[in-house]
Amino acid sequence: MPYIELNKDLPGITGLLDYRKDTALPIRQLTQILLRGDSTLTEGERELIASVVSYGNECAFCTAAHSATADLLLGEKETTKKAKSDPIHAPVSEKMKALLDIARAVQKSGRDVTPGMIENAKREKATDLEIHDTVLIAALFSLYNRYVDGLASVTPSDPSFYERLALILKNSGYLPTPGRYDSLKK
Amino acid sequence: MPYIELNKDLPGITGLLDYRKDTALPIRQLTQILLRGDSTLTEGERELIASVVSYGNECAFCTAAHSATADLLLGEKETTKKAKSDPIHAPVSEKMKALLDIARAVQKSGRDVTPGMIENAKREKATDLEIHDTVLIAALFSLYNRYVDGLASVTPSDPSFYERLALILKNSGYLPTPGRYDSLKK
Repeated sequence: MPYIELNKDLPGITGLLDYRKDTALPIRQLTQILLRGDSTLTEGERELIASVVSYGNECAFCTAAHSATADLLLGEKETTKKAKSDPIHAPVSEKMKALLDIARAVQKSGRDVTPGMIENAKREKATDLEIHDTVLIAALFSLYNRYVDGLASVTPSDPSFYERLALILKNSGYLPTPGRYDSLKK
Repeated sequence: MPYIELNKDLPGITGLLDYRKDTALPIRQLTQILLRGDSTLTEGERELIASVVSYGNECAFCTAAHSATADLLLGEKETTKKAKSDPIHAPVSEKMKALLDIARAVQKSGRDVTPGMIENAKREKATDLEIHDTVLIAALFSLYNRYVDGLASVTPSDPSFYERLALILKNSGYLPTPGRYDSLKK
């Protein structure tokens, strides 16, 4: 049961973003820019960063939500699975491997990012902006993971919930839209 | 030296918020609402949460900046010092002690917040909104700390830098304002 009174129809982050809409708006806007705005990283790659960070923080809701969204955008489930559990063998580019290494370090602590990790990423032609965005996406999901679990929001156990949520995040992005969560309600 | 090319006149978070202004705006807006918006917690108490979380994350820039800002708002330096190093004896209300305990847990992981911590806070008459805001402020500074250190932004060693920054944060808040950082430049 959540630690504060939330709308029972809205599990996980959805109820928190509904609880305080004024703080939700900039969180949503930041996420939209970083995960859906113009970028040399694909939407699938950026959702992969979100998924890997959420997995590192053991946030079950966020891991399931962003893994399902990455899977949907990538058109297969192998990449997300491997990026979480066996990153060395994940079928992603060397640049993406280097960026995911940075994201995993940020998840633990900003201080865990080493000059060697940055050199690796730059050797694989990662730009300053890609490195910046990787760090900021990893930092943003470190916020989300703490928000979701720190208030003990509800984590649905039905995998189809996350497939429906992934469809919303793929088709409508992160900004507030009318009737946004209608498909999540039973 | 920062891992990406930043404006050399703008150390710590200031250069990062200048590097990508479109992502900076919602981060600034969220901070303004949480730390300067209407609240039953004082601005000093909310800066104290920021300071304690930054201290836990060993983010030297953010700890110095928000400790200086809390000191300025509280009108003394003892509370911030004790809240970081000896929280049991910090001269704050029992409610604030309970909220700082929650913030410290969130800093480590959202999963570290226990029902007992929430019960303590509610026993001391913390409202749902105060608990929500404490968790979200702690989560937001977990983002900031990772952003600042994950890109190895510069940490000035001169304490007067943080006093000047604290004056800006006290008098002008977090939203972008023209000439905002003029007083930081040597």
